[in-house]
Amino acid sequence: MTRENKVDDTPERKGPSRRGFLTGTAASGAALLAATAARAQTAPDPLITEVQPWASGLGEGVDATPYGLPIKYEDDVVRRNVDWLTADTISSINFTPIHALDGTITPQGCAFERHHSGAIELRKEDYRLMINGLVDTPLVFTYADLERFPREIHTYFLECAANTGMEWAGAQLNGAQFTHGMIHNMEYSGVPLRTLLEEAGLDTAGDLSDKWIYVEGADASSNGRSIPMEKALDDVLVAFKANGEALRKEHGYPVRLVVPGWEGNMWVKWLRRIEVTDQPIESREETSKYTDTLADGISRKWTWVMDAKSVITSPSPQMPITHGAGPLVITGMAWSGRGAITRVDVSLDGGMTWQPARLGKAGDSKALTRFYLDIDWDGSEMLIQSRATDETGYVQPTKDALREVRGENSIYHNNCIQTWHVKENGEAENVEVS
Amino acid sequence: MTRENKVDDTPERKGPSRRGFLTGTAASGAALLAATAARAQTAPDPLITEVQPWASGLGEGVDATPYGLPIKYEDDVVRRNVDWLTADTISSINFTPIHALDGTITPQGCAFERHHSGAIELRKEDYRLMINGLVDTPLVFTYADLERFPREIHTYFLECAANTGMEWAGAQLNGAQFTHGMIHNMEYSGVPLRTLLEEAGLDTAGDLSDKWIYVEGADASSNGRSIPMEKALDDVLVAFKANGEALRKEHGYPVRLVVPGWEGNMWVKWLRRIEVTDQPIESREETSKYTDTLADGISRKWTWVMDAKSVITSPSPQMPITHGAGPLVITGMAWSGRGAITRVDVSLDGGMTWQPARLGKAGDSKALTRFYLDIDWDGSEMLIQSRATDETGYVQPTKDALREVRGENSIYHNNCIQTWHVKENGEAENVEVS
Repeated sequence: MTRENKVDDTPERKGPSRRGFLTGTAASGAALLAATAARAQTAPDPLITEVQPWASGLGEGVDATPYGLPIKYEDDVVRRNVDWLTADTISSINFTPIHALDGTITPQGCAFERHHSGAIELRKEDYRLMINGLVDTPLVFTYADLERFPREIHTYFLECAANTGMEWAGAQLNGAQFTHGMIHNMEYSGVPLRTLLEEAGLDTAGDLSDKWIYVEGADASSNGRSIPMEKALDDVLVAFKANGEALRKEHGYPVRLVVPGWEGNMWVKWLRRIEVTDQPIESREETSKYTDTLADGISRKWTWVMDAKSVITSPSPQMPITHGAGPLVITGMAWSGRGAITRVDVSLDGGMTWQPARLGKAGDSKALTRFYLDIDWDGSEMLIQSRATDETGYVQPTKDALREVRGENSIYHNNCIQTWHVKENGEAENVEVS
Repeated sequence: MTRENKVDDTPERKGPSRRGFLTGTAASGAALLAATAARAQTAPDPLITEVQPWASGLGEGVDATPYGLPIKYEDDVVRRNVDWLTADTISSINFTPIHALDGTITPQGCAFERHHSGAIELRKEDYRLMINGLVDTPLVFTYADLERFPREIHTYFLECAANTGMEWAGAQLNGAQFTHGMIHNMEYSGVPLRTLLEEAGLDTAGDLSDKWIYVEGADASSNGRSIPMEKALDDVLVAFKANGEALRKEHGYPVRLVVPGWEGNMWVKWLRRIEVTDQPIESREETSKYTDTLADGISRKWTWVMDAKSVITSPSPQMPITHGAGPLVITGMAWSGRGAITRVDVSLDGGMTWQPARLGKAGDSKALTRFYLDIDWDGSEMLIQSRATDETGYVQPTKDALREVRGENSIYHNNCIQTWHVKENGEAENVEVS
């Protein structure tokens, strides 16, 4: 779909302020009031007029669910994989159901997974973390050792470098879960890596500009990655809790690395070893994988930071508008690996005009920010987009602008503006505008 | 246990700063460094020297858990009830495993439950919310209607009025989960109640000082409570998501009321009706229950706000110290229904001397705050306590101070300072000091 297919400019597309929304509704008897008030005045609703079964009997006791799961009616809000994407499910990925979530926290139970050799089961008692290489005192830590160091708590997003990667070649996947669902956002508790490196005798006051760390996991893939020492000492955490509780098996139980704002594969799970080196290791995962091939065939490496990005999660292909014209909440999420999100703009006409969205709360650095735009939808088709700006002033680019500098050979680091075509019947489709 | 049993004053009980902790360790080869370095120098650890099964085979694929649960090794981190506390489990309570959590977020899966007639299953399609009484236009909202109003997101604690209630009579229960586990802290998404009341034509600019709302749930108990209009228009939310996803059945799916800072029973689950009235209803749940009987037999009513409170979650009876003397992380949580926590102090000697704890991050208003105190434990017994201060300047009282003004007849609103007796062997016990 091209911009030529876009809807005509409608005279009043700009969403009213929240106050205006309400005032307008009350004063004019507009859409929502009419719709809801109607219910009280039309044929009696047995759900209101009759005593329902759930109000006339007892529910379930507190012994039923020592650890609870979502109610059965929400059984479509789950991680999903795409069976044609990888040869098997062991070295594969599934996607967070971001279309159905709100707020900023991602529950661990539905937070996407990416494994290189499957999720392993590793008991705390069997856990060891070695720090070796260019340190005064190589050390091995048990899990119980790690619990004795001063802890910090921080909320960070983790995004896979390949998130939205299939979109380089065009609008491929019909759903925000699949185009943008390789992301989650959790509150971590852990020990700053700086503390552990200092414990091993690294002189953090000295010149470490040529030093790196090489990190690897306890799974068969080991998924080794090199990280410059400057980042290692900045904000990297050795984490053991997420959203208050232990990490889930699939997220690295009992210990994973947290590398705020940087691509997800560096957040090594089942963390087993950290080696201080004087050069990067140039492992498989940073040479043949996780580099960005440009139009001329040259591959960029060390593209660690996840640039500012956003996506509208509702309406979207999996979340059509079912209520017709009138008040509509447009919502989505924005994030940046370089700091806090300071602004999100939304377009209803494929990027020709923009209006500022409302941030659900002030953006935390390197964490998901929820945004909303409350509009009075006139029922005509829309090309909806969101555009994030972060505290460095960086603005999320269009797909065309990104292709201009990067070509179309890349898999990773596609942070372009996403377009959903919302039709008059409320259904939405993944499209491109150019 | 009385203060007379306390440990002798030790000359250096004050915990060093984090920087001091590290410097001290590195400079003196103190406890932790010695403990960990020893491991690299003693007999080879097969967990380090040998390839382990989990590093030589494949783990579980991404299709295994569309919605994940904690790993089996964490199966003791669950909600627990106390079978002698209530006659059955339908009108009962279970407790959040706060002793095993860190950070601030409580996962829904282990967040405590309190039901008056059991947890009911109510489909979104069957959900109705009526607003009636002294409004211009009585309205009935479907779930889909609610999704069309401007949303907000906020993180709040919910504490049962009866939390710590059994402690009025003395040190009763051996575990933070049981003494303080009727609490959780979640990020909610919902519509401000003010918006819905205005939609029903309530003139929020007029004089509403004599107005109330009466709220009830769709379960058989209905659990009706009266709330003054000033609070209803201030920060009350009609919420449908918690920690990003739909509310769980046991927390009121699909819609509950969120009454920030006020006692948990007012956060009506399966919310079905809000009536605007010119007086409180004086329901069962606010007359025979949820009042505070004082020493003279008179009961206080309308004691809605949960005052500032805190508890050390580790070490605690369920979380003994297992590593002997040396570096020890003392951690816990603090909260206040009147605003943000600004300070937490910790005592190691039963309240004789105090030192400021480190807050995990700046306290949010009416939300849990995590605190830490990093000490070098000398291995002698301790009487550990925490004391919260909120932004109003209110300081959490001792149990004696609270009993002096309230007597010992109350069940609810016990926000006193908690004491754990930590023994030389690292075990901890619920005690009183006076």
